[in-house]
Amino acid sequence: MKKKERYRFAVLGATGAVGRRMLSTLERRNVPVEDIKLLASPRSAGQRLTFRGQEIEVEAVAPDSFADVDIALFSAGAAASEQYAPEAVKRGAIVIDNSSAYRMHAEVPLVVPEVNAHALDAHKGIIANPNCSTIQLMVALHSLREFGLEHVVISTYQAVSGMGQTAVDALLDEVDAFRAGEASKQTVFPVVKQDTHYPMAFNVLPQCDIFLDNGYTKEEMKLVNESRKILELPDLRVSPTAVRVPVLYGHAESVAVRFTQPVTPEAARERMRKAENLIVVDDPATYAYPHPRMAEDTGETYVGRIRQDLGDPHTLLFFVVADNLLKGAAWNAVQIAEALIARAN
Amino acid sequence: MKKKERYRFAVLGATGAVGRRMLSTLERRNVPVEDIKLLASPRSAGQRLTFRGQEIEVEAVAPDSFADVDIALFSAGAAASEQYAPEAVKRGAIVIDNSSAYRMHAEVPLVVPEVNAHALDAHKGIIANPNCSTIQLMVALHSLREFGLEHVVISTYQAVSGMGQTAVDALLDEVDAFRAGEASKQTVFPVVKQDTHYPMAFNVLPQCDIFLDNGYTKEEMKLVNESRKILELPDLRVSPTAVRVPVLYGHAESVAVRFTQPVTPEAARERMRKAENLIVVDDPATYAYPHPRMAEDTGETYVGRIRQDLGDPHTLLFFVVADNLLKGAAWNAVQIAEALIARAN
Repeated sequence: MKKKERYRFAVLGATGAVGRRMLSTLERRNVPVEDIKLLASPRSAGQRLTFRGQEIEVEAVAPDSFADVDIALFSAGAAASEQYAPEAVKRGAIVIDNSSAYRMHAEVPLVVPEVNAHALDAHKGIIANPNCSTIQLMVALHSLREFGLEHVVISTYQAVSGMGQTAVDALLDEVDAFRAGEASKQTVFPVVKQDTHYPMAFNVLPQCDIFLDNGYTKEEMKLVNESRKILELPDLRVSPTAVRVPVLYGHAESVAVRFTQPVTPEAARERMRKAENLIVVDDPATYAYPHPRMAEDTGETYVGRIRQDLGDPHTLLFFVVADNLLKGAAWNAVQIAEALIARAN
Repeated sequence: MKKKERYRFAVLGATGAVGRRMLSTLERRNVPVEDIKLLASPRSAGQRLTFRGQEIEVEAVAPDSFADVDIALFSAGAAASEQYAPEAVKRGAIVIDNSSAYRMHAEVPLVVPEVNAHALDAHKGIIANPNCSTIQLMVALHSLREFGLEHVVISTYQAVSGMGQTAVDALLDEVDAFRAGEASKQTVFPVVKQDTHYPMAFNVLPQCDIFLDNGYTKEEMKLVNESRKILELPDLRVSPTAVRVPVLYGHAESVAVRFTQPVTPEAARERMRKAENLIVVDDPATYAYPHPRMAEDTGETYVGRIRQDLGDPHTLLFFVVADNLLKGAAWNAVQIAEALIARAN
């Protein structure tokens, strides 16, 4: 990308939960935006959103929307990305795509800037933003990679907002119906498009996204495959279980990591404290540890409950939390834009 | 215990969440009860509860309450157990204690009837009911023990009712305040007696019970120590993380178990289907797996999401759910009473 004072942005999927946070993150991080085009499906076009105090009308996306755009942030689902990312690239834009469409393409960098910003150097127009549950895990694991990452066992506690604003509204409706002693119709959880639904209010569901043939869910396999690609450890063992919990914002992860050498919690804490955008909240004496409500509306990743396995000095257990719509999506995408800008020449 | 047609019961802590379920479970399982004494602290005495259609007044507990009692079910906390269990035994009663007071005493059997009813033969008057999160794990693991249990990594999703009715009320109050846009005072979660509290509504907290010196919580160490005792595997490796979630009833557990030999999911399912009181709910094609709302108000343990580890044929992953106040407490205690009755001669 050519170095400039300010850059022309577009946001595809601007009216969605992540799209709106892309706008607010561009504001909060004071990104040098010259102008910004808000794009969405024809259904959402015409809505008006505010950016830096100015009302902007959302336009229906078309291939030519991306003419005269430097950086296009995409968050409108895999189908929209597959349709419009090549068009945007053809017109000279760099696409930062929050969908799963291109994440595992060999020529597409999959980037968590604190971990592998160097991968941006090889981009060919499309850069993929990893899945929410992967990003926060990467920030934590990367800080410990010098100890030799061998095997990661992870169980997640994932907020419903990972399924979009519809899911946030549906959980709140369910909770209200429950408190009113009324039956609620269930059409959203665990996955909108499947024909069997379960209650989410006061419940946990061990299914995030659809099942694949191997008995794992798509969300679980993202944790495996995206982690290996981002960390550049194709043989890293990952044993994932992804679970939806009745939380609105903020994913939590219970993680056990085996290293190729013994690691003390003190050594791990020291590395984690030095890691970029990773905040260690870890003191049992003062009941200090991370939880989703603490991470909500922040861009950092939090880690605590760092302790050695009771039977294996090579293994550490810890608990990682981040706002899934910010560090897990919009914030990370904007950080990628910033890293591109820093590399412009 | 001497064989009789019907037995004289007492319930200490009868007005609590578990105590009330001990009464309803004695009814539901049609236990041969001759009469039943309802006991509680002087503060709760005078309340009236119904058993088999009869109103019974709750009496203030005293050592002589246990004269003429065959089986006393205790659920009034460790201090009450330490005070009254020896008095009850002295007066000829057998105590089934739901508190943590005696669980790790060498001469006290710690019993999940499906797993180690044989341990009852050695009792000296007190029998301990294991902790809620341990019981359901034991039912699942026992069914697979022939494959050689080596290492268990477990992350829990624990309902607030594990902290008593106060916690159920507190979560609902918090949820109502949240929906009304009001601040809620936080005095209950994660542990009433500590001076730092966090929100529980729409949140998860990686702390169940107090922290111990090794950085693990008491709940986590119960999973380790009670599992080893019940399974009679003193060297079993257990790597526990206990997490409270905004669920009212029903604990869930994400479990990875390494065996001394390769185990297929099919072989595991076959053993689990044959296991007593363990229900396999496991079919991704029909979105079948267990979750807390499905287990609520039942006495069984449910298991699903049974799959092989992606990198180790010796390891299986699965998800276990049970009602923490029933199989995790009252139901298991009543099953112990039934096992004692079956052994009477």
